[in-house]
Amino acid sequence: MCNLKFYFFIFCVILNFYHNGAARSGRRDKMADIEQQSKERQEEPKQSYKVLVTHPEVPKEALDLLSQVTEVIVCESLPPNRTEILEKAKGVHAFLWGSHEPLNDQVLKAAGPQLKAITTMSAGIDYVDVELLKSHKIPLGHTPIVLSAAVADLAMGLMLAAARRLQEGRRKIETSTWENYHINWMWGQDIRNATVGFYGFGNIGQTIAQRLQGFDIAGILYTTRHAIGEDKEKQFNAKKVPFTELVEKSDIIFIAAPLTPETQGAFNSTAFQQMKPTAVLVNIARGPIVNQKDLYTALKTQQIFAAGIDVVDSEPLPADDPLLTLPNIVITPHIGSATKRTRTDMAIVAAHNILRGLAGEPMFSPAY
Amino acid sequence: MCNLKFYFFIFCVILNFYHNGAARSGRRDKMADIEQQSKERQEEPKQSYKVLVTHPEVPKEALDLLSQVTEVIVCESLPPNRTEILEKAKGVHAFLWGSHEPLNDQVLKAAGPQLKAITTMSAGIDYVDVELLKSHKIPLGHTPIVLSAAVADLAMGLMLAAARRLQEGRRKIETSTWENYHINWMWGQDIRNATVGFYGFGNIGQTIAQRLQGFDIAGILYTTRHAIGEDKEKQFNAKKVPFTELVEKSDIIFIAAPLTPETQGAFNSTAFQQMKPTAVLVNIARGPIVNQKDLYTALKTQQIFAAGIDVVDSEPLPADDPLLTLPNIVITPHIGSATKRTRTDMAIVAAHNILRGLAGEPMFSPAY
Repeated sequence: MCNLKFYFFIFCVILNFYHNGAARSGRRDKMADIEQQSKERQEEPKQSYKVLVTHPEVPKEALDLLSQVTEVIVCESLPPNRTEILEKAKGVHAFLWGSHEPLNDQVLKAAGPQLKAITTMSAGIDYVDVELLKSHKIPLGHTPIVLSAAVADLAMGLMLAAARRLQEGRRKIETSTWENYHINWMWGQDIRNATVGFYGFGNIGQTIAQRLQGFDIAGILYTTRHAIGEDKEKQFNAKKVPFTELVEKSDIIFIAAPLTPETQGAFNSTAFQQMKPTAVLVNIARGPIVNQKDLYTALKTQQIFAAGIDVVDSEPLPADDPLLTLPNIVITPHIGSATKRTRTDMAIVAAHNILRGLAGEPMFSPAY
Repeated sequence: MCNLKFYFFIFCVILNFYHNGAARSGRRDKMADIEQQSKERQEEPKQSYKVLVTHPEVPKEALDLLSQVTEVIVCESLPPNRTEILEKAKGVHAFLWGSHEPLNDQVLKAAGPQLKAITTMSAGIDYVDVELLKSHKIPLGHTPIVLSAAVADLAMGLMLAAARRLQEGRRKIETSTWENYHINWMWGQDIRNATVGFYGFGNIGQTIAQRLQGFDIAGILYTTRHAIGEDKEKQFNAKKVPFTELVEKSDIIFIAAPLTPETQGAFNSTAFQQMKPTAVLVNIARGPIVNQKDLYTALKTQQIFAAGIDVVDSEPLPADDPLLTLPNIVITPHIGSATKRTRTDMAIVAAHNILRGLAGEPMFSPAY
C-alpha cells in the first residue's frame, strides 16, 4: 500500500498542478499533459490492485495505462453481459464502466467492500446510483470536456440538417419529387440573425456556442442551475433567462443539460406550444429530457419547424417508431462522441480517474 | 427616354455611392440600402419599358419594384415553359431570368434588337451564353453575395452530415441495426485540427471559412484563379496552393468555384486517388465540376471517406441513381439558397440589376 501511494504521490503532484490550473478553463492541451504523465509513470512497478474494464472495446491506450500499475480484467461479452460483469466484479478494486448498464447496489455487492474507485466513460451519469456511491464514499469519475468538441460538431450538424430540411430533401429525391423548377420550394430556416437558446450551458453548450460565432447569430439565451459569469456572458453575447422566456424567444434551441428529475420531460406539450412555429430543436443530451410523444405531435402539427436529435427515449429506437415517419426530424443513433480521437481520449481520462481514485486522490474528472 | 434617364440618374448616384464603397467588401447592409432606395423611387412615374419575368414565383418584392417604373410581364407556366418564354419575349427591353433554362441566341432573337438588359436570379451563370451577350453589348447581372450566407450554412451542414455519417446512421435505425453497445461503432471524422481545402475561394468560400472559425481547424488551403490578398489570407490562416497539393493535404474539401471549361470534371478518378482515405468532399457549386461516375467509385471503394453534395450532374437526380445506394453520401436537391430571406434578397438584387441596366448604368451585380 505505502509503496503504491508513494509512486502515486509524485504522479498526483503533477496532475494537481495541471488540474488546478489549465484544467478549469480551456483544457485544450489536456491530452498532451496526460501523455506526458503516462510516460513518466512507465517505470513504476506493477501493483496488486485489480481493475475491471466492463467492455471489450475500451481503447487499448487506456488498458496499457492501467496495466502499468494494476492487474486489468476485461469483460469479453458483446453486447456487455451483466452476468459476466457481476461474476468478474468479485474482489476488484475499481471499475472502468464502459457501457451505460445500470451501476447500482447489485454491482457494489458483487464487487465487495474493497472497491475503491469507479469511473464511467461518458459525460452523463444518469445510469449511476450516485447517492449510493456517496453513501459508500466511493469516488466516481466521468469523462466530460474531452467529448465536447465531437458532441458540439454533431449538434451543429443536426441543427443545420433540421433547419435546412436534409431528411425531407432526401425523400424528395428518392420519390422523384425533386421539383427544382420552383423558386419557393423547400425553404429552410436561416441561421443568421437567429436567437439561439441553450437548455443547459455547461462545457458542451459553450463549445456549441463557440462554433456559432461565425454564423452571424443575433444572440444567446440560456437556462442553467448557475449563471456562467459575466466574462463568458459577454464573450458569447449570452443572457440567463427563465425557461418560459427561453422557449418563447429562441429560433433554435439546443438541449445540453444532464438528465435529472428536474430536467426529465422539460420539453413537453406546454413548452412546444410556447415555441415559435419556425423553431428548430436539437437534443444531444439525453432522450427523456424531451417528452417524445409530445415532440411527435409538435412536429406533425408543425407547432415547431423541425428537430435534430442524437438521443431518444429509449435507445435503440425501434425501426417502426412514428418519429421515423416524419419529414421534419433528423435522427442519429447516439453518436455524439463517436470519433476515434474522442473515444480514445475518454478512455484515457477514465483510466486516470481510476489511477487517482486508487491512490486516494481526487479524480481527474470527478462526477460528484 | 430622357425623362426616364433623369429619374434613374438620381437613383444611380445613390447606388454608385454604395456600390463603390461597402459593396466590394462586407455588403452586410446591402438589403437595408436597397430598401431605402426602393422607398426613394416610389414617387417616380411609370415608364414604357417592358420587363419579362420568366418565372411565376419570383418574389413579389421584386415585381413591386419593377412595376413602379416599367411594365412587368410574368410567365405563368410551371415548370417554366420555353415556348411561353419565347412568345412573351417579343419586344421586351429586359429579362429577369428566373430559372436555369438556357439563355442563348434563340432567346435573344425572340426578343428583338431593343433588348437592353438581362439578369439571372442565381450566382452561377453556366446556362447563359455570356460571349453572345458580350458581342451584342447586352449587360448581364446575377445575384451572388446575398446568397452566400444560406449556401455556406448548407455547405457546413453537408460537411458535418457527411463527416459524422448522418445518412448511414439513419439507415442503421431504419434497419434495426442501431448497435449502441459498441464503443468503436460509427466513428466519424473530427473537424478540429482538420486542414480544410477550398476549390474556389470567392465570396461563398470565404463565408464558409468564416463559419469554420469556431471549429478549431488547423488551417485553410485554397486554389483560385487569383490569390485573395494577404489580409484575408491572414484572417483565415489560408494559403494558395496548386490543385494537387490541395487534394493531397486536405481533410475536408469544399467545391465553391463556378462551372467553366476549366473546372468541369476537375474532381475525377485522378483527384480521388490523390485524396486522403479520411477525406470529406462537399460540393455546393455545380454538379459537373465532379465526375459523378468517379465519385461513385471513390465512395464505394472508400478511396475517400464521404461526400455531401447539393448539386449533381444532371438535375434532378433520378431516384434510381447508384449514388443513392451508398451509405457515405449525403445529397440535397439543390437547395443552397433556399430560404425565404435569401430568395427574396436575390429577387430584389435582380430587379435592381434590371433597373440599372435599363438606365444604361453598370448593373448592381454585373456578371461580366
